Amino acid sequence: MNSFSRDVAASIVEVRAEVAELHAELVRYGLIVWTGGNVSGRVPGADLFVIKPSGVSYDDLAPENMILCDLDGNVVAGSPGSERSPSSDTAAHAYVYRNMPHVGGVVHTHSTYATAWAARGEEIPCVITAMADEFGGPIPVGPFAIIGDDSIGRGIVETLTGHRSRAVLMRNHGPFTIGTSAKDAVKAAVMVEDVAHTVHLAREAGGVIPIPQEAIDSLFDRYQNVYGQGTDERR
Amino acid sequence: MNSFSRDVAASIVEVRAEVAELHAELVRYGLIVWTGGNVSGRVPGADLFVIKPSGVSYDDLAPENMILCDLDGNVVAGSPGSERSPSSDTAAHAYVYRNMPHVGGVVHTHSTYATAWAARGEEIPCVITAMADEFGGPIPVGPFAIIGDDSIGRGIVETLTGHRSRAVLMRNHGPFTIGTSAKDAVKAAVMVEDVAHTVHLAREAGGVIPIPQEAIDSLFDRYQNVYGQGTDERR
Amino acid sequence: MNSFSRDVAASIVEVRAEVAELHAELVRYGLIVWTGGNVSGRVPGADLFVIKPSGVSYDDLAPENMILCDLDGNVVAGSPGSERSPSSDTAAHAYVYRNMPHVGGVVHTHSTYATAWAARGEEIPCVITAMADEFGGPIPVGPFAIIGDDSIGRGIVETLTGHRSRAVLMRNHGPFTIGTSAKDAVKAAVMVEDVAHTVHLAREAGGVIPIPQEAIDSLFDRYQNVYGQGTDERR
Amino acid sequence: MNSFSRDVAASIVEVRAEVAELHAELVRYGLIVWTGGNVSGRVPGADLFVIKPSGVSYDDLAPENMILCDLDGNVVAGSPGSERSPSSDTAAHAYVYRNMPHVGGVVHTHSTYATAWAARGEEIPCVITAMADEFGGPIPVGPFAIIGDDSIGRGIVETLTGHRSRAVLMRNHGPFTIGTSAKDAVKAAVMVEDVAHTVHLAREAGGVIPIPQEAIDSLFDRYQNVYGQGTDERR
Repeated sequence: MNSFSRDVAASIVEVRAEVAELHAELVRYGLIVWTGGNVSGRVPGADLFVIKPSGVSYDDLAPENMILCDLDGNVVAGSPGSERSPSSDTAAHAYVYRNMPHVGGVVHTHSTYATAWAARGEEIPCVITAMADEFGGPIPVGPFAIIGDDSIGRGIVETLTGHRSRAVLMRNHGPFTIGTSAKDAVKAAVMVEDVAHTVHLAREAGGVIPIPQEAIDSLFDRYQNVYGQGTDERR
Repeated sequence: MNSFSRDVAASIVEVRAEVAELHAELVRYGLIVWTGGNVSGRVPGADLFVIKPSGVSYDDLAPENMILCDLDGNVVAGSPGSERSPSSDTAAHAYVYRNMPHVGGVVHTHSTYATAWAARGEEIPCVITAMADEFGGPIPVGPFAIIGDDSIGRGIVETLTGHRSRAVLMRNHGPFTIGTSAKDAVKAAVMVEDVAHTVHLAREAGGVIPIPQEAIDSLFDRYQNVYGQGTDERR
Repeated sequence: MNSFSRDVAASIVEVRAEVAELHAELVRYGLIVWTGGNVSGRVPGADLFVIKPSGVSYDDLAPENMILCDLDGNVVAGSPGSERSPSSDTAAHAYVYRNMPHVGGVVHTHSTYATAWAARGEEIPCVITAMADEFGGPIPVGPFAIIGDDSIGRGIVETLTGHRSRAVLMRNHGPFTIGTSAKDAVKAAVMVEDVAHTVHLAREAGGVIPIPQEAIDSLFDRYQNVYGQGTDERR
Repeated sequence: MNSFSRDVAASIVEVRAEVAELHAELVRYGLIVWTGGNVSGRVPGADLFVIKPSGVSYDDLAPENMILCDLDGNVVAGSPGSERSPSSDTAAHAYVYRNMPHVGGVVHTHSTYATAWAARGEEIPCVITAMADEFGGPIPVGPFAIIGDDSIGRGIVETLTGHRSRAVLMRNHGPFTIGTSAKDAVKAAVMVEDVAHTVHLAREAGGVIPIPQEAIDSLFDRYQNVYGQGTDERR
């Protein structure tokens, strides 16, 4: 840790705490079971991010157990937690941080409704205003890709680049979300499951009514610029 | 605050506490995610109401964070919480209080099943006795309207005026409920999701049996006049 | 209270505590919302039962708030809680106790899946072994009946007399369950929602496989006579 | 207890504590209602296993209430808890331990979605990567069998022998899962309900996309050998 400037070292402490704490939100909203799911957060001002260890119980997620990685996904030797393996999705998170510099947080879950859409490879149409607010349109589907190389990370980046949505449904797999911070990405993970659930139910009972594109545009614009308490973070 | 009479000032304190506390009921019944949803309550004896701040975590909703507004939806300058923005739905709440003097509370959520009916623009038919008790008939659908002017508030008022139901499903958006008090409106929000859920499931598996109109009338009449412990508030 | 023998007075204290506590099980299993639902228990050795007050929050259900009634459903004057009104379903509970002497407890809820079957007036077929164990066959439907006379109680008694099931789905209304004790009736309320949920889902995705009648008989017989720790109460 | 070596006695204490504690996971993940469901764990180095007592509340499951059995399913006389009856599924657990020496834990639930598939006698197709990871293919269906002889245990063993899946859906009954330890079998019970839920929803809304067999093989292989922190236990 000695090789980091005082500012970076302080940021690492902060991001560790934030990432550790945010895993509780995945539990609170029922987005994960057992040790599934992972949250990571970029360390501001450094080519580093913090991610959950692999296969560890959500009851054991203390800040010092979080794992510090460089943007190639390698664990920073000697840092707290470095004796453990990072999440098996670390390579995908790293790929996103390397290729999307505005992204401050990444989340992956197998949340039930979003994963059901992913198993059909079907994008979620934008038929409720909360979805227009939050995602500005449909939730897109990413390619089928399995762990082992960069294909998951590349699929996320290619799908979300130039797209309003901060969520992608990786086919047969589940949602990945990005955000300006780890908290913003967790919010997107919560919201994508919420809209996946609502739109599933809506369609199950009959035809849904589309929202006109200009209303979607107007809602998205307002929400990104006006909603909340004027902080940097979308919420 | 000095400009209010002692009675009004005491009422404000009471309504702030009530509105803050009632947000926990939205969480308890799973009606909201993240910072979504809002509860407001009219201050008895004054042209004022109290509402949730915009985009603030449900873990941070203390009485002093609630925001005091006049019936045009303007924040009362200098009152506690006035440094924050009120809920982005404040204009809709204000419109309801201005135009429906008997309304003491307004609630808005994106609860899952009610919003699914709203995405189809379909009213919920009255096929269970609990729904006849509570709403006296079907739950109506209001127009499509987006934030920015009075159209949401107007849609709520036009739909619910002269209707037994205290709940309206705003199209592609979600439920708004009214009540004699904030608590009564929260009850309506809980019950509209409950009936939206039950009737969704009932229809999903086959044909539902209508309830004869005179039985609906009789149930509604009894429930409004006999049920509970004889307090002013419906419950 | 002075008019009761010491034994009966002690039983009343016990049943008050049991009935008060059992309401928490309705909450735990998500069978009720707001103040809906009610549990009652017969006082052994007396023509009395204890039931929940009407329209009171589940957070306020202490033993001394429970209401003591005679078998005509009249509140016992001067007993603790008698200043409140009993549950609006008291007449139905009383009718069951008057006409089914082996019944020690009655429960009513509007639990979601069971009420969905009730809205279609459709009995739940016995296609899972847990249902054969617990109910010995299908869950029957009772008539449409509204509050105001004996018709709900009569519908319950006529449907369940001579039937293995301890649960009846009152049409367009919801489940009523009976048991050897209040706890046994609560168990039946929990189990009827559980089987209503499972069989709903099973049928939604295709054809269910019937269980042969002799297997149902054998499961029901074993469960009533062998399962558990050999106490009087079915569990 | 005196007849056991010190090592075995220590293992029994450990397995009692583990089995008692793991029942809370069934509650946490909503896999059971009332007293349903059971977890057992083999005692390493002895022909013994520990199982839940029959019909006892999940609030009362302390280590000393767990029941020690031999591999024929007989309670070990004089051991703590031996005054109670073991779970009514003890014979099935015993059969599995006798016939599958690598199995260290067995779990049975009536979890809702898995039981719904079982009521149709339909295997769950492998259409999500988490399922390929965990089960290496579809979840198979076992025969219809009722309590009273070895037929449930035999059905489990015959179905799972030579199969990658650690879960079997016993027809019209519900899931049984096995694992290298009681915890591993509980994980399988949690995951089988999770995939039963997700695949149910996925199919409900349209056609699901199959995963190519070689991708399933690759995911299963990696997960069994790489995932987690390199302990003996799969997680």
